[in-house]
Amino acid sequence: MIHTPTDLEKKINKAIEELDYERNPKSLFEPISYILSIGGKRLRPILAYMATNLFSDNLDKTTDPAIGLEIFHNFSLLHDDLMDNASVRRGEQTVHVKWDANTAILSGDAMLIDAYNYMLKVDADILPRILRVFNTTAMQVCEGQQYDMDFEKRMNVKESEYLEMIRLKTAVLVAASLKIGAIMGNASEEDANRLYNFGINIGLAFQLKDDLLDVYGDPIEFGKNIGGDILCNKKTHLLIKALENSNKEQETALKEWITAETFDSNTKINAVKEIYDDLKLDVLVEKLIQKYYLAAIQCLSEVNVTDKRKQQLLIYTNQLMKREK
Amino acid sequence: MIHTPTDLEKKINKAIEELDYERNPKSLFEPISYILSIGGKRLRPILAYMATNLFSDNLDKTTDPAIGLEIFHNFSLLHDDLMDNASVRRGEQTVHVKWDANTAILSGDAMLIDAYNYMLKVDADILPRILRVFNTTAMQVCEGQQYDMDFEKRMNVKESEYLEMIRLKTAVLVAASLKIGAIMGNASEEDANRLYNFGINIGLAFQLKDDLLDVYGDPIEFGKNIGGDILCNKKTHLLIKALENSNKEQETALKEWITAETFDSNTKINAVKEIYDDLKLDVLVEKLIQKYYLAAIQCLSEVNVTDKRKQQLLIYTNQLMKREK
Repeated sequence: MIHTPTDLEKKINKAIEELDYERNPKSLFEPISYILSIGGKRLRPILAYMATNLFSDNLDKTTDPAIGLEIFHNFSLLHDDLMDNASVRRGEQTVHVKWDANTAILSGDAMLIDAYNYMLKVDADILPRILRVFNTTAMQVCEGQQYDMDFEKRMNVKESEYLEMIRLKTAVLVAASLKIGAIMGNASEEDANRLYNFGINIGLAFQLKDDLLDVYGDPIEFGKNIGGDILCNKKTHLLIKALENSNKEQETALKEWITAETFDSNTKINAVKEIYDDLKLDVLVEKLIQKYYLAAIQCLSEVNVTDKRKQQLLIYTNQLMKREK
Repeated sequence: MIHTPTDLEKKINKAIEELDYERNPKSLFEPISYILSIGGKRLRPILAYMATNLFSDNLDKTTDPAIGLEIFHNFSLLHDDLMDNASVRRGEQTVHVKWDANTAILSGDAMLIDAYNYMLKVDADILPRILRVFNTTAMQVCEGQQYDMDFEKRMNVKESEYLEMIRLKTAVLVAASLKIGAIMGNASEEDANRLYNFGINIGLAFQLKDDLLDVYGDPIEFGKNIGGDILCNKKTHLLIKALENSNKEQETALKEWITAETFDSNTKINAVKEIYDDLKLDVLVEKLIQKYYLAAIQCLSEVNVTDKRKQQLLIYTNQLMKREK
């Protein structure tokens, strides 16, 4: 039986609701319960389930690593929001705002450790394989976040550097979720790797969409403040392309906004957005998203299961590409 | 062949020197290389080696988990120093002072992940056992740090709560190092658990000694600023016993110092220390250290190997109890 993404979202949400974070010390576990309860798309667990479901009808054993992947993802959001000084996540206060920086640090550490705890629950015969994928990925996510922070201080970030950064920061975890799900479904190493590559392409497309939504999204739908990337001079694909494609006047304006020490937030966001609009960067980025989406579909087509088994994953992927939040 | 602690310290230091932290992004890995290179006693790796050495002459396979334990320990110092706002560690600048808070957060995260990387290198047949011990311990260390921070805001911490806190924050990792070392040496579960309990007692004694040295140690020998615990109102065994045993006048003075918002650091340290001196708390704490030391020796005596094989571990433990830094 092939499950729909909606079914799988319910399945993972039920499992997450049942996690025991009521225990002591409350000051350590309450923030974990909070961040896991304020929603999110459950993208990574759903993809893990769907990857298992390509090869097997039994998804129950995938729940533990799927929880581990979701906890890890939320750990990285928790620490990233602190480092980026972001105050809103999914329309709610971030942990370091609702509590404080120390709480965000230590509860984040505990989440990282707990992510391993759930990974560790898989059967001993596949444990080394699962953990190797997970551990390599976890380190890459840190490397991606470091590049992201390094890039904020640099003016000359190249497109290729940016794409490598988002591969590490976002795409590898999406890819690992699919690969781990595939391993749980007893897929061959080849098919597991095809799903990994599918995930890399989907992950890149997903992050580019996120960058676009940060500027062009609806603030309520998106769940974050619009223009956050512009305010902190994040070297997104949009900004890199803007610096590349701008005329002299636009370039000077962009660089003035980037180096400005004091400014009104809305004025800065609107000014930079106007340049993005003039350069039609939304069209450019949508094209790149489409390129990665097609590459992903190609990877999936090579996975050795029937088209019928792939249908729900294709529908879900398509939804992700069209999302407005 | 039974190795001396000095030999084992050389062995682990050589292995740590050979770790590859020259890689990119430099801003992520340089702080890791820094904190691992500024010394430390290598207590946990040495204990892991010694535990293996009780049962086996082949210590080489213990190197990977021993590195993992040392990286984990240094991760916890890195994040704790940030949370405690400590500026000096081992006589050198802490990472968040030498770099910044974000560097300390993210490099710490990378260390935690890398600790698992080295744990993962053990043979598949014992991997689940080793990882379960390590993972449980890692979470307990976070819980201990959380209690430690919670206690700073409370005046009425009981001795039993304090002892449970240092069990979690310090003793379990010492104990886990011994247990993991024992498992690497193919010890029986019973003997591995005896060494775990030996480690809990040694760890408690060790932390009490640390509390004592924070007040009575030589600042150069100790490698940290003396009186740091007093300044941040850390509810150490000394302070808890001082509040318990003080007369009305001493109690009022202590509480005034604890609640004072502004003060001269040296004046506060000297005033609190004088009360500790009057109450002869150093003698009291030394007695408790001795109690745990004897309990540890009892646990070790029950381990099923010859006294000759235990000799170096006994010598080393004895040295730890007598240390001045």
